[in-house]
Amino acid sequence: MNDSYLNFVNSPLGARVARSLRLPKPEVLRRYRADAPEFDGIVAVGAGPSPQLLDALAGVIARIGMTSVAHAGASAWVPLANRHGLMTGRFEPADPTAGSQARVRALVFDASGIADSAQLDTLYAFFHDALRSLDKCGRIVVLGRPPDACASPRQWTAQRALEGVTRSLGKEARRGITSNLVYVADGAKSSAESSNDSGIQSGIESTLRFFLSPRSAYVSGQVVRIGTAPSALGDDFDWSRPLAGQRAVVTGAARGIGAAIAHVLAAQGAHVTGIDVPAATDALDATMRQISGTALPFDIAAPETPARIAAALDELGVDVFVHNAGITKDKTIAKMSEPAWRNVIDINLSAQERIDDALLEAGTLRDGGRIVCVSSIGGIAGNVGQTNYAASKAGVIGRVQSMAPHLAKRRITINAVAPGFIETQMTAKMPLAIREAGRRMNSMSQGGQPVDVAQTIAWLAHPGSAGITGQIVRVCGQSLIGA
Amino acid sequence: MNDSYLNFVNSPLGARVARSLRLPKPEVLRRYRADAPEFDGIVAVGAGPSPQLLDALAGVIARIGMTSVAHAGASAWVPLANRHGLMTGRFEPADPTAGSQARVRALVFDASGIADSAQLDTLYAFFHDALRSLDKCGRIVVLGRPPDACASPRQWTAQRALEGVTRSLGKEARRGITSNLVYVADGAKSSAESSNDSGIQSGIESTLRFFLSPRSAYVSGQVVRIGTAPSALGDDFDWSRPLAGQRAVVTGAARGIGAAIAHVLAAQGAHVTGIDVPAATDALDATMRQISGTALPFDIAAPETPARIAAALDELGVDVFVHNAGITKDKTIAKMSEPAWRNVIDINLSAQERIDDALLEAGTLRDGGRIVCVSSIGGIAGNVGQTNYAASKAGVIGRVQSMAPHLAKRRITINAVAPGFIETQMTAKMPLAIREAGRRMNSMSQGGQPVDVAQTIAWLAHPGSAGITGQIVRVCGQSLIGA
Repeated sequence: MNDSYLNFVNSPLGARVARSLRLPKPEVLRRYRADAPEFDGIVAVGAGPSPQLLDALAGVIARIGMTSVAHAGASAWVPLANRHGLMTGRFEPADPTAGSQARVRALVFDASGIADSAQLDTLYAFFHDALRSLDKCGRIVVLGRPPDACASPRQWTAQRALEGVTRSLGKEARRGITSNLVYVADGAKSSAESSNDSGIQSGIESTLRFFLSPRSAYVSGQVVRIGTAPSALGDDFDWSRPLAGQRAVVTGAARGIGAAIAHVLAAQGAHVTGIDVPAATDALDATMRQISGTALPFDIAAPETPARIAAALDELGVDVFVHNAGITKDKTIAKMSEPAWRNVIDINLSAQERIDDALLEAGTLRDGGRIVCVSSIGGIAGNVGQTNYAASKAGVIGRVQSMAPHLAKRRITINAVAPGFIETQMTAKMPLAIREAGRRMNSMSQGGQPVDVAQTIAWLAHPGSAGITGQIVRVCGQSLIGA
Repeated sequence: MNDSYLNFVNSPLGARVARSLRLPKPEVLRRYRADAPEFDGIVAVGAGPSPQLLDALAGVIARIGMTSVAHAGASAWVPLANRHGLMTGRFEPADPTAGSQARVRALVFDASGIADSAQLDTLYAFFHDALRSLDKCGRIVVLGRPPDACASPRQWTAQRALEGVTRSLGKEARRGITSNLVYVADGAKSSAESSNDSGIQSGIESTLRFFLSPRSAYVSGQVVRIGTAPSALGDDFDWSRPLAGQRAVVTGAARGIGAAIAHVLAAQGAHVTGIDVPAATDALDATMRQISGTALPFDIAAPETPARIAAALDELGVDVFVHNAGITKDKTIAKMSEPAWRNVIDINLSAQERIDDALLEAGTLRDGGRIVCVSSIGGIAGNVGQTNYAASKAGVIGRVQSMAPHLAKRRITINAVAPGFIETQMTAKMPLAIREAGRRMNSMSQGGQPVDVAQTIAWLAHPGSAGITGQIVRVCGQSLIGA
């Protein structure tokens, strides 16, 4: 798509506006490519007092083949890194007078031991020294403990404060850098971990890999909680094809974000069944042919569809169900027709409820399975002309939050992604000014790609993500817009 | 302050930008004035299936002296209104062809009985018909049930969807109209209610009064939960001086938002003790003289201050404590000094912890008291150059969430307000472009006033607000900015 912003910031007026509003030039984001190494370079590690997650972190960094440097505050790192056979050195702050600086790919801070607001100064010390050394398209990950599981109000308070730091760092860092906060419950681990004292496949591994990878290019300013549900990954687990042998279903799979989801899940080893309305059969068939998937030309809003899906999947069942299908029918409420309201609610929200009920009752969705729903930033913040759409997408958040405890006994997780401004055929049709505002009002100063949403869904669908449920993850480049 | 936006939207370029971005002209907000009636005009009432809050609503509307009209969907309203001696009629949608339309002051919808996403169409029917009839600076209030207390996932989902509707309505309505969602726990009531079957002083009354009043001029797009803790208001409770006989403390009270808080609490009947740094003694003395308050020239960050405050208040104790004092020391983290980090965390966050600990341990803060903290939109969303400030204000959110269950056994509530762009000496010094962006990026298209923050704090401090605790209420005109 034509990005007229670059022209704008080079016009005399545009340059002035950009300077005074501190608008940056958008960075070309580094995204995952099958023909390039997913992980390389150096992780700089920092830590607060009594860090509890460094051992698990060292194991992951060693396994993904990155190297490490330890900040002065992370003295516990070197012996742990040695134990995991991980190359490590001492972090040296970049010399601001030197032209070229030693760059690191990621800054990871273990804040799990911070128990009091005064101890937050350890974050200051690390990021003050290290932020300038972070490469463009680098990664910031802060690890903490879930505030509401903290023993004392002071610890809860200090852990909650991490959100303010992480989100501000994302807004400051720019240059395609992402910044995310991961709250790790005490005891989050995989079942393999207990039988293997080198800490292989910890419960945080799928999440750390995602946030350190180019796969998370457009996910920033997010807070993710990892619970204690164990992931049953074998020692021979193939991280390059995590969904191998699994069956996935994607609704609205013919085009756009849905097609991207189908492609990514297939690339990770899943057999994908794509569903879309009969009118999109040709596009759906074409997409499914590309990935050797199965096409089901069903209208998800039709009353008989849940039973038809269950019947079609019955024999083999399904491991991953992605509720992606959705429509918009935008009008201010005074001008909106009743069918426009009903259709949007029914397709975007009620149909998901009917399908899940049918699949869960029939046992089609296997125990230990994954449900991922597509919500929207509009469901979080509301939007002009979208009372119907925002209601449906806020309802999806409610669905995720209400179903998660319900499904936990069957070890099924349910989560949602909430896309921000994603470059699609739909956004290409927006009026210029609105499109430009949507593209720029985020820390990446650009829209996301359908693949960014798809990669985020693949992480939530990952067998290693058993500890993640009931959560909403925005794929929005840390959009300014929120609630 | 000079509002250059009005000039801008009347320039040729500005008019084009305003049209294509749908930027409206800011409305002069109707604010509370002691010399004008707080409540007048008509409330239009709508309802979903099996509404459960209409009786309480009718009692409040009758007592505040407004009249009502019932939408076709709210057939239960007329007998309830009659029982409360409330004038009521039938709502007639405004005729779009007529030049002047019958206007209503408020739209209140009882969604408490909505149990399924399909039933959300009752909101569509009401707001589709009624939104055009709402006067400028009007009020939208949607009443629901707390999603996480709902019996079924479908009910939880539908109740959660209300957020999307309410927030979208706020963004659509413009013209100084606010839109808020109140989740009322089943059983939220005052102790007086049980002894009086006319429903006097329901647990929702202080909140309904606030959201229907001009006092809430700059509070929009918010979601508030009212729990079941009973408010012990007598039948002779004086709603015009709700804090009569109470003692309140406000930190940072010399100027700006703190002085506004002191003024509003005093106007509602409280004796106010103002605290500010010794360097601000003259301003503090002047503010306290205006309201017959007491000045304590203490530096809240000094180690001995908590004990000194407790000692100064010891004999009479305190009912309401407002943690307003705060500072900014903005720099990107790479350029920030360590004292700038430490001072901001210490004054904005750690000092609050030390003071509360001292007051709670000494019993200075009475059982049934109120703590109100000032957080910030920056603590929710993060901000460039404010890692320290955002950490401190996110920590304040953690403090509120962690202390609320802790304090419940003493019937003390703790809540926070999170101001957005408020017109103060600080914002007047911002560069033009940043100030303009902050002013306009909200549904009111203008900055708030210190009194808007103060009125919101007074509502949380109200004796009738016993059911509200652990919550963060933004005073931001429904700013676009969030997380």
